[in-house]
Amino acid sequence: MKVAYKIWLDHYGKAFGEGPHELLARVERTNSLHRAAHQMGMSYSKAWKLIQTIEKRLGFVLLDKKIGGPSGGGSHLTPKAKELMKRYGRFEKDIGKAIEKIYQKHFGSMKEKAWE
Amino acid sequence: MKVAYKIWLDHYGKAFGEGPHELLARVERTNSLHRAAHQMGMSYSKAWKLIQTIEKRLGFVLLDKKIGGPSGGGSHLTPKAKELMKRYGRFEKDIGKAIEKIYQKHFGSMKEKAWE
Repeated sequence: MKVAYKIWLDHYGKAFGEGPHELLARVERTNSLHRAAHQMGMSYSKAWKLIQTIEKRLGFVLLDKKIGGPSGGGSHLTPKAKELMKRYGRFEKDIGKAIEKIYQKHFGSMKEKAWE
Repeated sequence: MKVAYKIWLDHYGKAFGEGPHELLARVERTNSLHRAAHQMGMSYSKAWKLIQTIEKRLGFVLLDKKIGGPSGGGSHLTPKAKELMKRYGRFEKDIGKAIEKIYQKHFGSMKEKAWE
């Protein structure tokens, strides 16, 4: 037996969670929403719509998009997106630890077969 | 903004969570899986299948069913089901408190509009 969970930030709908966190981390590494989406097996249009939706729910812009130019354009995280990523990463880590600890506290001593 | 989550016990699939917890609590109050299912807007056959599935995943029996007899039959929680209910209730309460606290720790100071 194990504990499982899904957690997200909500503001009139899902505003931020594991999926967007991974997508933005990949944008940060690749400087490209195209590449980030592709790595996650997501279409560009789906990724683009996701960003639009969560920007609206979060109340701030996540990506600076540069079209063309000498460095060939690309997507970069705004300072606010970087702050959100930093906070969310720590939040997620703390949550994981706390949930496992609370699970062990209450179910660590269960003696049934499925718990072994 | 707020934090939202779903949490469950997993053993080769969802083994126990909020839905089964509520269903069993209602069986405990009404001594009837029929009435418990009805109160939750669930068909009896769906509730019955749910119980069968989670009993298999948990590895023990949840309900004692008595057919007919002087007290008219009904469903009662087994001692193991009662123990699970007690543990799960405390687990759920601790989880809720911990998640809210961790959310406040990391996002309580966010200054964006959606966080106000």
